[in-house]
Amino acid sequence: MAKELTTRKENYSQWYNDLVIKADLAENSAVRGCMVIKPYGYAIWEKMQSILDGMFKKTGHSNAYFPLFIPKSFFSKEAAHVEGFVKECAVVTHYRLKKDENSNEIVVDETAKLEEELIVRPTSETIIWNTYKNWIQSYRDLPILVNQWVNVVRWEMRTRLFLRTTEFLWQEGHTAHATEAEAIGEAEKMINLYADFAENYMGMPVIKGSKTEEERFAGAVDTYAIEAMMQDGKALQSGTSHFLGQNFAKAFDVRFSSREGKLEYVWATSWGVSTRLMGALIMAHSDDNGLVLPPKLAPIQVVIVPIYKSQDEMKRVCEAAVKIREELEASGLSVKFDDRDTHKPGWKFSEYEMKGVPVRIAIGPRDLDNNTVEVARRDTLEKQVVARNSVDDVVRGLMEEIQQNIFRKSLDFRRNNTHCVDNWEEFRDIMKNRPGFVLAHWDGTRETENRIKEETKATIRCIPFDAETEKGKCIYTGKPSDKRVLFAIAY
Amino acid sequence: MAKELTTRKENYSQWYNDLVIKADLAENSAVRGCMVIKPYGYAIWEKMQSILDGMFKKTGHSNAYFPLFIPKSFFSKEAAHVEGFVKECAVVTHYRLKKDENSNEIVVDETAKLEEELIVRPTSETIIWNTYKNWIQSYRDLPILVNQWVNVVRWEMRTRLFLRTTEFLWQEGHTAHATEAEAIGEAEKMINLYADFAENYMGMPVIKGSKTEEERFAGAVDTYAIEAMMQDGKALQSGTSHFLGQNFAKAFDVRFSSREGKLEYVWATSWGVSTRLMGALIMAHSDDNGLVLPPKLAPIQVVIVPIYKSQDEMKRVCEAAVKIREELEASGLSVKFDDRDTHKPGWKFSEYEMKGVPVRIAIGPRDLDNNTVEVARRDTLEKQVVARNSVDDVVRGLMEEIQQNIFRKSLDFRRNNTHCVDNWEEFRDIMKNRPGFVLAHWDGTRETENRIKEETKATIRCIPFDAETEKGKCIYTGKPSDKRVLFAIAY
Repeated sequence: MAKELTTRKENYSQWYNDLVIKADLAENSAVRGCMVIKPYGYAIWEKMQSILDGMFKKTGHSNAYFPLFIPKSFFSKEAAHVEGFVKECAVVTHYRLKKDENSNEIVVDETAKLEEELIVRPTSETIIWNTYKNWIQSYRDLPILVNQWVNVVRWEMRTRLFLRTTEFLWQEGHTAHATEAEAIGEAEKMINLYADFAENYMGMPVIKGSKTEEERFAGAVDTYAIEAMMQDGKALQSGTSHFLGQNFAKAFDVRFSSREGKLEYVWATSWGVSTRLMGALIMAHSDDNGLVLPPKLAPIQVVIVPIYKSQDEMKRVCEAAVKIREELEASGLSVKFDDRDTHKPGWKFSEYEMKGVPVRIAIGPRDLDNNTVEVARRDTLEKQVVARNSVDDVVRGLMEEIQQNIFRKSLDFRRNNTHCVDNWEEFRDIMKNRPGFVLAHWDGTRETENRIKEETKATIRCIPFDAETEKGKCIYTGKPSDKRVLFAIAY
Repeated sequence: MAKELTTRKENYSQWYNDLVIKADLAENSAVRGCMVIKPYGYAIWEKMQSILDGMFKKTGHSNAYFPLFIPKSFFSKEAAHVEGFVKECAVVTHYRLKKDENSNEIVVDETAKLEEELIVRPTSETIIWNTYKNWIQSYRDLPILVNQWVNVVRWEMRTRLFLRTTEFLWQEGHTAHATEAEAIGEAEKMINLYADFAENYMGMPVIKGSKTEEERFAGAVDTYAIEAMMQDGKALQSGTSHFLGQNFAKAFDVRFSSREGKLEYVWATSWGVSTRLMGALIMAHSDDNGLVLPPKLAPIQVVIVPIYKSQDEMKRVCEAAVKIREELEASGLSVKFDDRDTHKPGWKFSEYEMKGVPVRIAIGPRDLDNNTVEVARRDTLEKQVVARNSVDDVVRGLMEEIQQNIFRKSLDFRRNNTHCVDNWEEFRDIMKNRPGFVLAHWDGTRETENRIKEETKATIRCIPFDAETEKGKCIYTGKPSDKRVLFAIAY
């Protein structure tokens, strides 16, 4: 029998967990909170990486690599930063094991204790700014536009595959600039780039905006984020870009002589997206039959399943299937022809539905006679019979159509679950009974923000860039406010 | 003045260190033994990665990701394996820091001590075989052909940029097979793939062979390696592939039911190359003017340097240069047009020599008048004047020629420094005064191997696959031997 998922309606959270496992994306490892990303899941991540990396390079960034370990003392140099990460650090204290003479067990060699503990990077601002210090003397050395694709570790207490894991993969861009305006421009450019990626590749609409002080990155002057709505109405922060001001330059004493010959502190940004995007992608479009992938990120875009009874039928069907594969591959599509004789067509159909392959082609003896194939699209589960000589056209068309359709569907869903609210009762009711995005007025204080969170679990996801100036009263305190901010319960 | 290198003759080791720094490839970080790979060095590594990754995928492998941390107990499960790595492990013992109430300093929170210590992976056999246990039930689940591109940590006491660092980047393939023959075939396939990459992309001839027991990977039944000769006559092990037998399957109890319905242990291989290849690449071809890169791995294949005095000249020269760049880019070449007015042409010439850009094009007002450009190749430093309309042809031809020439040059060098030796005095003399590869007879014992090492520093790099059967006497003990093995002093 085919694999079955808990339905979204039954238990959304369980549906997600089931899906990650059953679509062969990832699993928990023997190490608490650390995941194994399985080949199929990793292939999706590689597609994301490759597209993002191309976008970074097109905007002038280069990749580099900085150490995994950060000396404890570096960590303490930027006060807000250390405050933010101090409670979730993996700490290396020794550099050798040995066989215990009595028990014969492998134990830590206490004579190999580090003079200064090393922290496994939770993010790399400190080690990078300590390095930039030596790279920057003059305005001629600026800007520095560097990114790295690496693993990071944050000791999370409650973990969930892709969404929150102790170790995760990400990219972190770290740029250095001569002027404040240029650094702010960079931070804006990168949040726009992330939004472009989310919408046009992941098919996932996002809202761009600034974080409140409460939700800001530890050490940032300003944090920009993109927020997406999941199918349970919750928000998932999918990427952030930070204007760091001169905070890290001051902490690590990084100054440059300006064009005018003055010694000035360098301006900084950092920005990142992580394997969390995998969680967003999975939740954004999938259904009770399994994963739904946007064609632009699908490792397999088309699967061909042969249907036959006799050996003779098999031969004829497979010959035709191979030709179709070649045709589609020549059009630049990634095609899998699943000719395994260990599994039945029905099993394969649900397997590839579970794995979110955008288009399935089935071909049997009757198709050969009629010069047709059956084409099924994953997003709507619709099937059509297509003339053999228009398969290539139809499939290429479907790639575009599916990509657009899942975006449109997500956008509609978000629209239907976004509310302008001016009444505290309604606000509470929404957050309790039918979570979604709420645009409401807020008095701008941290205190109110925290009170609202305590009472409803909703947080301010961002102050949208496109929020219109509009006189109003804070939803909680009634104090004056001049624009609406975005509230939601968040992942 | 341009940057200058220590010459190879003066001090080969210092030449290498200078080169890595001055060509902007990497530098030491604030963390002992860990390097920062700078954007230019990383761009070369990315080219290597992308080519190797393509080769892995073409041979049926997929990428995945396994945890950075390995529980200490896993480590101890394969006896030879733990023996090999126990002395150089970074150990995570705590998962939280805190602010000390008295000193206000950031200290390790002793209440957050891990029950079981975690080792930062020095290699991933143990965590991966612990995972494969759940992936493998039947012969239908085999083979598993998985690779990961990750960072690893081995606490080395003496480190050198790229060649031996505490943290390094690598790929590690881990495969699981139903039969011994298939696993051995895989290990052989991968060492051949590495040799192909070394020779046809890095332009670096290698000798393929088996390691002796002494030099084998900790936990392997057999280790295959490729060995390259550096310009100082020393050997650099550039890639290894291990046939692991059933050692890890037994340690982690990974069994499968065979086609015949019997429960059997799974057969394994692992194989890897690392950022050490960067060290090999740098040392294999470079000269006293700087890096020499094979065109297939050069991030910049062609640099165009404009030469002008007046603003008017500049405009005309730059127009022509941009056209040449477009032409070459259309031919698929990676081209940089360095139009910075902050540096003089002479400075740029030596800068790109230092960085090993294979071809340099200089263009000035006189070239415009004559409809020519000056083309210089990095490997031989030869210049030629080329008619404007044949630039594309000439440059594309040079790419091929340089790629072949540096390989040929390395091969000649190796031939000239490889000796068949049957006399112990001569062996000692070579290792002492003019190191190179020595093919000599050996009696097959670990004891002799170690004695030779003590007396000459030379080790058996490998037993070449293509060693001919030939009766002889061990160079050290005079005992009988039936083939020559490869001795060298190694990095």
